[in-house]
Amino acid sequence: MENIRVIQYGLGPIGCAVARLVVERPGLELVGGIDVDPAKVGRDVGLVIGLGRELGFAVSEWAEEPLERGQADMVAHTTSSHFDSFMPQLVGILELGLDVVSTSEELAYPWQAHPEQARTLDEIAKRRGKTLLGTGVNPGFLMDTLPITLTGICQSVEQIEVQRVINASRRRGPFQAKIGSGLAAQEFQARLDSGRMGHVGLRESLDMVAEALGKKLERVEMEAGPVLAERAIKTDFVEVQPGQVRGLRQAVRGYVAGRLFLSLTFVAALEVEEEQDTITIKGKPDLTMVLKGANGDLATAAVVVNALPRVLAAPPGLVTMKDLPPVTAW
Amino acid sequence: MENIRVIQYGLGPIGCAVARLVVERPGLELVGGIDVDPAKVGRDVGLVIGLGRELGFAVSEWAEEPLERGQADMVAHTTSSHFDSFMPQLVGILELGLDVVSTSEELAYPWQAHPEQARTLDEIAKRRGKTLLGTGVNPGFLMDTLPITLTGICQSVEQIEVQRVINASRRRGPFQAKIGSGLAAQEFQARLDSGRMGHVGLRESLDMVAEALGKKLERVEMEAGPVLAERAIKTDFVEVQPGQVRGLRQAVRGYVAGRLFLSLTFVAALEVEEEQDTITIKGKPDLTMVLKGANGDLATAAVVVNALPRVLAAPPGLVTMKDLPPVTAW
Repeated sequence: MENIRVIQYGLGPIGCAVARLVVERPGLELVGGIDVDPAKVGRDVGLVIGLGRELGFAVSEWAEEPLERGQADMVAHTTSSHFDSFMPQLVGILELGLDVVSTSEELAYPWQAHPEQARTLDEIAKRRGKTLLGTGVNPGFLMDTLPITLTGICQSVEQIEVQRVINASRRRGPFQAKIGSGLAAQEFQARLDSGRMGHVGLRESLDMVAEALGKKLERVEMEAGPVLAERAIKTDFVEVQPGQVRGLRQAVRGYVAGRLFLSLTFVAALEVEEEQDTITIKGKPDLTMVLKGANGDLATAAVVVNALPRVLAAPPGLVTMKDLPPVTAW
Repeated sequence: MENIRVIQYGLGPIGCAVARLVVERPGLELVGGIDVDPAKVGRDVGLVIGLGRELGFAVSEWAEEPLERGQADMVAHTTSSHFDSFMPQLVGILELGLDVVSTSEELAYPWQAHPEQARTLDEIAKRRGKTLLGTGVNPGFLMDTLPITLTGICQSVEQIEVQRVINASRRRGPFQAKIGSGLAAQEFQARLDSGRMGHVGLRESLDMVAEALGKKLERVEMEAGPVLAERAIKTDFVEVQPGQVRGLRQAVRGYVAGRLFLSLTFVAALEVEEEQDTITIKGKPDLTMVLKGANGDLATAAVVVNALPRVLAAPPGLVTMKDLPPVTAW
């Protein structure tokens, strides 16, 4: 089989991890790197992604340069969480005739929360004969693909509860900052209210699970708030006083026929004891699953790269993880 | 959407459970029941499957009668583990122009262990424009679909170990007998050697996982033996003396490049303390998953019924679980 030629669009930490994995994985070839950061544009892609060697082509601001050098098959896209920002980027890529795997959270299952944009992308993809997938570890796997896969052995499902707990003490400084570590509760709330903080994707996971199980959610509740420190915490990156924020707790709940049907909870905080993902299904039979080790950064880069051949082989259009055969390592 | 019309072929305990679920599930319609047992043929299907009411049509020995009464779309097939027995049945069903979901263990991934028969079934299915799937909880889910799904968030996989442990004390009498409870070790071994005992499907799961991950197994080891009782055990169905058999332990291992790559172990014994399924993936990242509650009888009936619409919608041919979008409850 010929190599799949991939352009990496977005050279932040996740994008660089995806790009390195594309370089390392037999069967894939990195043929371009795109970013708007002036500090990156023009530099050799190999150096920018932390490969430790040059690849012989520079970071460009858009896809023409890599396409002029030769052909490309797909784009791995890791720029932004929100349709406002990524929509024109994805339209542009599809119009160039490239398949796309994107980590944009709102793309993981956009048919409920952004139906108009979803239809537009689906139409463009079908017209161009290309396929577009939004995925990642969360949304894209832990709170949607994995629970719906587990329901495969259930005769009936009354309720699904998923909880992801991340011990931020073991993560990078930017992650500790992102979840509000060290902030006063008031400042934390102000950032949440302004949309500058918080995990994106719970709603998309909720919608994907509901759709897969054929349930219409009559009511959706969302909540987010700080996890406060009871005692002082000091990491390599931040100091937290008692009463200050040590992390984020966010949940979304969906109701069917007046009863709670889906509950997805995301907790990321310093000094959390049990870092794990838990899926509880009440049904016939009842199931409980505990998964340990699903490191977000590693896992998101993995699922993007693992999905590339699936998306290349899939029928044209906007697809989600529930539409594809299991995305596996290969 | 119109109801999917299903004929249940095989009216043992699993087949009856599938048939009852077909009757209960909106969107499905049971239109026939097939069995060769003279004690069942001619009796009302509803009574034979334990529905507690008549359905108005009788168990027949083959599919003509249900097909003469009206049309059918699919067959749920639960007769036999081995190609020797089920091959002519499946050929017959496909030639009648019906899609099939079967619990026949050797069909779960037959491309390595039974390549010639797999090709024959694939050709017939494609010629008739029909789809054929082998599935179940094990093989079909716990030791193949679920681990390969988990590898989706791995950048690399060095080793996968799956262990299914069943506490037979909580199961039906026939299950306790099937795993050798109360036998002398010598009699157990004789039954194993004659092929009259043992779990079927470990090899098929092994082959599916290897194929999904693109690994060629250079060596496969299989082993099976008794779990012996250290003290006397008494259930509602059997008495076991110290030194006699209280269950079955069976394993299959696959090697790549001289190293153990896949290890699947099945333990079903009386008085097992921790009934659970464990998947351990060594890779990047390392993952450990523990699942509780995957009751084999409930789960196998569930996955067969849940797979019906997926198989109806799939392209023609012989497919396996790794080829289909996640089979979910619905």
